[in-house]
Amino acid sequence: MPLRELVIGFDADDTLWHNESIFEKVHERYRALLAQYHDAATVDQTLFATEMRNLELYGYGVKGFTLSAIETAIQLTGGKIAADEIQRLIELGREMLAHPVELLEGAADTLARLAPHHRLILITKGDLRDQERKLAKSGLAPLFHDVEIVSEKDEGTYAAILRRQDVPASRFLMVGNSLKSDILPILALGGLGAFVPYHLTWAHERVEEMPVASGRFFRLKTLRDLPGVVAVLADSRNSGT
Amino acid sequence: MPLRELVIGFDADDTLWHNESIFEKVHERYRALLAQYHDAATVDQTLFATEMRNLELYGYGVKGFTLSAIETAIQLTGGKIAADEIQRLIELGREMLAHPVELLEGAADTLARLAPHHRLILITKGDLRDQERKLAKSGLAPLFHDVEIVSEKDEGTYAAILRRQDVPASRFLMVGNSLKSDILPILALGGLGAFVPYHLTWAHERVEEMPVASGRFFRLKTLRDLPGVVAVLADSRNSGT
Repeated sequence: MPLRELVIGFDADDTLWHNESIFEKVHERYRALLAQYHDAATVDQTLFATEMRNLELYGYGVKGFTLSAIETAIQLTGGKIAADEIQRLIELGREMLAHPVELLEGAADTLARLAPHHRLILITKGDLRDQERKLAKSGLAPLFHDVEIVSEKDEGTYAAILRRQDVPASRFLMVGNSLKSDILPILALGGLGAFVPYHLTWAHERVEEMPVASGRFFRLKTLRDLPGVVAVLADSRNSGT
Repeated sequence: MPLRELVIGFDADDTLWHNESIFEKVHERYRALLAQYHDAATVDQTLFATEMRNLELYGYGVKGFTLSAIETAIQLTGGKIAADEIQRLIELGREMLAHPVELLEGAADTLARLAPHHRLILITKGDLRDQERKLAKSGLAPLFHDVEIVSEKDEGTYAAILRRQDVPASRFLMVGNSLKSDILPILALGGLGAFVPYHLTWAHERVEEMPVASGRFFRLKTLRDLPGVVAVLADSRNSGT
């Protein structure tokens, strides 16, 4: 690869476009549906427990969420939930899948600035078709050299991507809003991570401690700060430090 | 690529392992659940119509099937279906996802014979995690050079795979049980297709007419006939005919 080029992986949901805010609105309607049976905290905790129990079989994404929401509603109402309320949950799921893609502020500009000089890769987990649909609607697809829709974002997944891209970890920068899925695995492999927090984080992705990896970990307020970090990294990688 | 090597794409469901037979058993239980409301043909037709209506949003796979089955049951019972029957549908879906992988007769032998001489690629559609799980359980993963889990198997998908594999269509053989998804698109691109019918075909995959593509299309009774076809093809490609 060219001397000053980095391979930059971008998470999608809540890094390039809004996602958790859509889930949060659905959670609000879900709590309202079950409010006559249980308080909001019980509803949230039970739904999360169902999602975690089903994660191995369902994987990530809206379809598995919808199935877990139906199952939890049956459980929390002791089977008293009406069929038309279950139908409403199915429709909520479809509304999520059909939701417009709303780019985060600065996402399009930042990718457009970086794409001519670096190899950009989209790396996202979730339902295959849903992620493809969102990428197509986002208008960002032409800026990416490759798209990896994966079932889990762990060290093994990133190691396979480094092999496929034929790039050493020291020249791979992952950018995302989840320390757990986007940052920690790539730091563990010796790569670079830029953490751009979103204002909401799904409980499953929460990590308490900030990583310590001097010169390899960067916490940014916005994607607009990324080109500056990339410029410094591309230079320092180039000089072999 | 080496002179006598082909790139051979294999479909997974109903080509390497049983799938439609598992769906068929679930369909039987589904008809029984709704038998007091409607005859089997109405149940089948309504479920299929729901699946087709949802395909664009859900894509292929068990999770979308389960959601469509719940929606259809609510519709066909006029909302009278009980919550515990919907819970039963959710459990049927999970049983499908947890089902053991049963290889088709000859699948493992055939792949093991071909893998040392040709580049084998698994090309399958469906839920990402479900297909990964089945491949892992199948024991066949080490025989594949690459795995492509895609949201649709059309000409665009195969053209992208040919580019990624850096192989001309004339040296790419696709093997599968669906004329629509496995054979017609690759023949249209100038590639080779080996059709190995399964005893059941999902209505969405049915094609009435056998393709005509002399020297490029092969209909096999079993995967065990594949190495013979491959031997001839590898030679004829080599000699440039």
